[in-house]
Amino acid sequence: MTTQTPPTSQDSLARLAEVIASRRGGDPDKSYVARLFHKGTDTILKKIGEEATEVVIAAKDGDAQKIVYEVADLWFHSVVALTQFGLTPADVIAELERREGLSGLAEFASRPKT
Amino acid sequence: MTTQTPPTSQDSLARLAEVIASRRGGDPDKSYVARLFHKGTDTILKKIGEEATEVVIAAKDGDAQKIVYEVADLWFHSVVALTQFGLTPADVIAELERREGLSGLAEFASRPKT
Amino acid sequence: MTTQTPPTSQDSLARLAEVIASRRGGDPDKSYVARLFHKGTDTILKKIGEEATEVVIAAKDGDAQKIVYEVADLWFHSVVALTQFGLTPADVIAELERREGLSGLAEFASRPKT
Amino acid sequence: MTTQTPPTSQDSLARLAEVIASRRGGDPDKSYVARLFHKGTDTILKKIGEEATEVVIAAKDGDAQKIVYEVADLWFHSVVALTQFGLTPADVIAELERREGLSGLAEFASRPKT
Repeated sequence: MTTQTPPTSQDSLARLAEVIASRRGGDPDKSYVARLFHKGTDTILKKIGEEATEVVIAAKDGDAQKIVYEVADLWFHSVVALTQFGLTPADVIAELERREGLSGLAEFASRPKT
Repeated sequence: MTTQTPPTSQDSLARLAEVIASRRGGDPDKSYVARLFHKGTDTILKKIGEEATEVVIAAKDGDAQKIVYEVADLWFHSVVALTQFGLTPADVIAELERREGLSGLAEFASRPKT
Repeated sequence: MTTQTPPTSQDSLARLAEVIASRRGGDPDKSYVARLFHKGTDTILKKIGEEATEVVIAAKDGDAQKIVYEVADLWFHSVVALTQFGLTPADVIAELERREGLSGLAEFASRPKT
Repeated sequence: MTTQTPPTSQDSLARLAEVIASRRGGDPDKSYVARLFHKGTDTILKKIGEEATEVVIAAKDGDAQKIVYEVADLWFHSVVALTQFGLTPADVIAELERREGLSGLAEFASRPKT
């Protein structure tokens, strides 16, 4: 009998970030993510704009499955962008926690009206 | 004696989603999130487009702190959009897990070249 | 002898719109514009989001030539979108004229502060 | 008796650009455009991203009047961005003419498939 420890972290976004970071410097012909890093920051940022637009389109269609798919795409490319700048999803989660800690999103409550 | 595992990013996002969902139907004058829900889907989607642009601007400035802040904004409003359609961050995490399960982002590897 | 006035921007945009409209229904393998129409509204709209992001990137680079190129791309795809809905650049110019006629962009002056 | 020449150009976009340029350095409290210039490049670029998203939303609604309105907004803020960098709509029109001169949008035809 063998005990199994999970091969990677319990934290899904942390694991995703690890996988993405491991692709950096890889063969651009074999990996989509290696290709993004190879092409550089502007290519990664264009994907952010593109995927945000696709979230909007999916939401206007009211198609739940497509919304999930496109938000996943948007977050995925966000993690690629974070990695490009030496940042991690944990930094983003910490920022979201910090705001929440400010008594229930008080920071947002004080924003100018939309 | 109990061992404690630290909260994961999915725990944090789940809690954020709960806080956001609890604002739905609240007083639009008192809560930024209640105001977004009150204004409706188009207002929420405009924020997605807006925050994506702000991520791009922050990244072009190469300002790490601002990048984290703007990605947090983008993910925050993504969760508002998910909530608007009865969806959760867990759905998005599951989709990202599913792709990863397809042998190391194979799905992305097969995408048309960017 | 006749005096000639140079073509205006609205003439140029009208001609561009004619060329674009003439591609509609054409062979998607031979014409980029025919391909956009063939793929449909969502593909055209994704290009709007994409080109807007490229304008932002070019402007952050402060690269004048690239800014002109990317705004041209953005306007080009705007005309494709207008054509998709039976609209023309003349409709947009008329709207811009209407606002200006409202005593010097008064409409914009009354907008909520950005 | 005096003959009157129009106080401004026959060219709608050129005239719009003149009006916009004349607002530069004006009182940010009195003019929306002066306010944009006062806040600077990032504020102007955020508007590009925002208005592009609004075009997408209007088009998904299939609302012709709203599409015209939002494309006008997008082009208006494009001209503000051009002005910020010492550029004009004429530069963009010239670029569009140049492409068309390349035998009927040949440049676009050679683009990678969308």
